[in-house]
Amino acid sequence: MIQPDSYIRSLLKRAPGDTVVAQGWVKTRRDGKNVHFVQLNDGSSPVDLQVVLDAGVAPGDVVARITTGACLSVEGELVASPGKGQAVELKARALTVHGAASPEEYPLQKKKHTLETLREIGHLRPRSNTFGAVFRVRNALTGAIHKFFQDRGFLYLHTPVISTSDAEGAGSMFQVTALDLDGLSRSGRPADFEQDFFKRRAYLTVSGQLEAEIFAHAFANVYTFGPTFRAENSNTPRHLAEFYMIEPEMAFCDLRDNQDLAEAFLKSQVEQVISACRPDLEFLSKWYDPDLFKNLEGLLSQSFERITYTEAIALLGKAGRNWEFPVHWGADLQSEHERYLTEELLLKPVIVTDYPLEIKAFYMRVNEDEKTVAAMDVLVPRIGEIIGGSQREERYDVLRDKIRAMAAHGMKEESYWWYLDLRRFGGVKHAGFGMGFERMMMYLTGMKNIRDVIPFPRTPGNAEF
Amino acid sequence: MIQPDSYIRSLLKRAPGDTVVAQGWVKTRRDGKNVHFVQLNDGSSPVDLQVVLDAGVAPGDVVARITTGACLSVEGELVASPGKGQAVELKARALTVHGAASPEEYPLQKKKHTLETLREIGHLRPRSNTFGAVFRVRNALTGAIHKFFQDRGFLYLHTPVISTSDAEGAGSMFQVTALDLDGLSRSGRPADFEQDFFKRRAYLTVSGQLEAEIFAHAFANVYTFGPTFRAENSNTPRHLAEFYMIEPEMAFCDLRDNQDLAEAFLKSQVEQVISACRPDLEFLSKWYDPDLFKNLEGLLSQSFERITYTEAIALLGKAGRNWEFPVHWGADLQSEHERYLTEELLLKPVIVTDYPLEIKAFYMRVNEDEKTVAAMDVLVPRIGEIIGGSQREERYDVLRDKIRAMAAHGMKEESYWWYLDLRRFGGVKHAGFGMGFERMMMYLTGMKNIRDVIPFPRTPGNAEF
Repeated sequence: MIQPDSYIRSLLKRAPGDTVVAQGWVKTRRDGKNVHFVQLNDGSSPVDLQVVLDAGVAPGDVVARITTGACLSVEGELVASPGKGQAVELKARALTVHGAASPEEYPLQKKKHTLETLREIGHLRPRSNTFGAVFRVRNALTGAIHKFFQDRGFLYLHTPVISTSDAEGAGSMFQVTALDLDGLSRSGRPADFEQDFFKRRAYLTVSGQLEAEIFAHAFANVYTFGPTFRAENSNTPRHLAEFYMIEPEMAFCDLRDNQDLAEAFLKSQVEQVISACRPDLEFLSKWYDPDLFKNLEGLLSQSFERITYTEAIALLGKAGRNWEFPVHWGADLQSEHERYLTEELLLKPVIVTDYPLEIKAFYMRVNEDEKTVAAMDVLVPRIGEIIGGSQREERYDVLRDKIRAMAAHGMKEESYWWYLDLRRFGGVKHAGFGMGFERMMMYLTGMKNIRDVIPFPRTPGNAEF
Repeated sequence: MIQPDSYIRSLLKRAPGDTVVAQGWVKTRRDGKNVHFVQLNDGSSPVDLQVVLDAGVAPGDVVARITTGACLSVEGELVASPGKGQAVELKARALTVHGAASPEEYPLQKKKHTLETLREIGHLRPRSNTFGAVFRVRNALTGAIHKFFQDRGFLYLHTPVISTSDAEGAGSMFQVTALDLDGLSRSGRPADFEQDFFKRRAYLTVSGQLEAEIFAHAFANVYTFGPTFRAENSNTPRHLAEFYMIEPEMAFCDLRDNQDLAEAFLKSQVEQVISACRPDLEFLSKWYDPDLFKNLEGLLSQSFERITYTEAIALLGKAGRNWEFPVHWGADLQSEHERYLTEELLLKPVIVTDYPLEIKAFYMRVNEDEKTVAAMDVLVPRIGEIIGGSQREERYDVLRDKIRAMAAHGMKEESYWWYLDLRRFGGVKHAGFGMGFERMMMYLTGMKNIRDVIPFPRTPGNAEF
C-alpha cells in the first residue's frame, strides 16, 4: 500500500539523493539512446514523476511491457531533474511490471480523446489527466464543504434516501419497490403496495430539507450532504437523474442571515479548493476554460448583489431584449434571465429574493405583502442558479392552510403531521438552502457537461458501471 | 442564526460577567420563591445552560409559556453558578418565547420514555438527551472517518446509488423504476424494462466496491462513504433496509496491509470520538452501557488477534459447546461463533482470515491452496463482525473462469466487462474492506438497537418521516 510519504505528489517534493519506491501507471514512455523515459502517475498529482530507466536495468521483455497504462513499481534514487516543471526525477535501479496494457487493446492511449469518448470508458477515464484533476477537485470540494459547516458548529446528518412522501412536488420521482414486477404484470391485479416492503409506495428522495428542519429544531444549525434523484427525462448537459445536494438548515435564522451564509459558503468553497488544488485548476483552465481563475477570483473579491424579484423583473423589462420567455411579474425567471442579470448586467453573483408566492414551494414563508415569499436564488456567471433557498413558514395556521389549499394538487394534510408538529411544539423562525454539488463542480472546474464532474453519471438510458 | 461563540457549549465555557444571548429549547423548568430556573439546550452540548429568571423580568403570561419543549431567546449576564456541573448560569434580563409547547399536547415531557416510544416520534426524539448524544457522536464519527482517510491521502468518491448490476449477489435488492406500476398491472403485459428510465432493470446499490476498484486503479488509495440497501425482510435490532457503508480500496495492497489498515481505522475512530465527545459517551455509558469505556479502551490498548478460519474452526471445536450451528471446516461462522471467539476466548478484537472459497464472494483472491480465499472479517466484542474485506482476485484468467463457473447462478460474463478490463489493463494486486457505519455507531454508543443510531430508520413496514 502506498504510504503518505510515497505518493508521487510527495516524491516530487523530496530531496535528490533519497532512495524511494514509486508505484503507479504509465502515462507515456519515450526512448532515447540507451535510456527510456517513463512518465509515471499514481493519481495523487497532475504532474507525473519521470522515471529514467537506463538500458540494461530491466531485461528487454520487461521493458517491452512498459507501455501506456501499464502498472509499475520502480525502486531507485531521486536525482535533480534537468527538465523543467519538476525538481527531481527517479533513476531506476529495479522495476516490476504488475500488469501490462496491450497497446493494441488499451483504449486510453496518449492521443487526446473527446470527453464523449471518455464517457464510454468510465472505468478507465479516471486515469486520464482531465479526470484525475476533476476527481481530485471533487474530493477537495467535499472536504471544503464539511470544513465550512463544522467550523461553524453545524451538525451533519444523513437524511433518508428512501422516502414515502413526495416532499414538495419537486418533480418526477423514482419509485422503489421490492415487489416482483414480472409477477405483478402477469397477475393482472392492481399493484397492492400494502404487500410491498414498506407497506406503502416508496420513492427516492428529491430533497432532505423537511427532515433537516426536524434536526434544526433540536441542534439549531445542521446540514445534509447526500444523493438526491429526479426521474425527469432531461437529456441535457445540466441534468442528472442522481446527483448530490448540500442542504443547511438553521433555526433562529431569517432570509438575511440565510443570504449571508450562502455567500460565505460559496466564497469559502472557492477559496479552499483553489488553495488545495491550484495545479489541477490550472490544468483545467488551460484545456477547458481560459477564464476560470478570472471567474473564481471575481466571486471571491466582490460582494454579491442582492435584489428582489420585483426589481429583477424591472431590470429585465428595461433590458431591451427579445426574451424567449416573456418577462412579467408573476412569471418564473428562466435561465436566459438569470444569466443576463449575473453575466451581462451586474457582472457578479446575484441573490434574487422575494419571489411570487404562486411560483414557489408551499413551505416558504409568506411575506407581509401576502403576494411574495421569503425565497432566494443565488445566481453566478456561467452556471446561473447554483443555490435555492428560503425562510420557512413557521406559523402553524398559515402553513396548515396552505397545505389544505393544495389538497386538489394531491397534498394530504395527514402526510405532513410531523412537519406541522414542528410548528406546534417549540417552533421558531428558520431558514435554509440547497446547493447542487455538481453545479458547483462545473463552476469550479470549467467543465461544461455535468456528466464529466461525477464518477458514474446516471441519465436517461444510461446507468453503466 | 446562532454563531459559533454563542452555542450553549461555548457559553458554558465563558467567563462570568459577559452579556450574551442564549437560544434553544426548554428541557425543564422549576420554580423557586420569586425565581424560575429554566434548563435551556440548543443541541450543542449534553449539558444544559441554566437560566435564572427573577420574578418580574417577564410578564406572567410569558412565564406561563416557558414549559418543556418551548423555544426561547434569553438575553442576560453570565454569572458564576452555585450549582455543580456548570461554571456559569445565565441571569436573564429579557426573554422571548418563539414557540410554546402545550404541556397537554407535547409528547416529549420530562419523564423518561422508552426508546421504542421515542421511535414513534422521530421528529421530536432528536431533542431528547439520549438522541442529542447519539447524533453528536454520529456527526463526530463521520468527521473522524474522513480525517483518517484524508490524512493518509485517500481520495473520496461517490459511487452510484442506482445500479444496473446485482454486484455480488449480496442479497435482495430494491428495484428502482419510473414505470407506471398501476398501468403495468392493468396492462397484463410483461414489464418492458426497455421502456424504463435507464432502458433496463435498475436497483439500489448493495456495495460501492466494484466501482471503488475502478478508482483504486487510477488514484491508488480511495474510499467511499455512502448509503447502501438490502430488501431483506429482517426485523431484527441489527438490520436496516438503508444503512451507510465505508469502503476503502487500495492498489498495491495485500491482505496483510488490509488488516493493518482495518485495525488502525477502528482504533482511530474510537480515539477521535472519545476525544470529541467524551461527555456524550459518559452520558450514554451511564444510561445504556456501564462497560462502554472499558470496551472502547480495550480496543485501543490491545493488538488485534489474527487467526485463520482454519484455526478458528479448531478453536471452536475445542470449546466444548453445544453450538446451534454445527462447527466444521467449510461452514460459515455464525454470530454465536464470532462472539465466542472475541468475547469469551480471546477477549479482544479478532481478525479471521482465509475463509473457504465456497462461502465467499467471487471477487476474492484464491489462495495458493486453491481451497481458501484471501478474505478477512474483523470481530469485536458485543457487535461481532464489524468489518469484512479481502484481497481481490487480480488475475484475469482466474477471475474470468470464476465468473463463467457461476453462470448457472445468473452471473453474466458480459455484465462484468469493465470489471475484467481492470485486470487486462494495468492490473495490480489490491484489497479493501467494508465497514457498516451503524454497526460502528452501536459499538461506540452502547445502543443496542440499530434503529436508535440513525436519524430516520428504514425497516420492513416502516419508512415514516
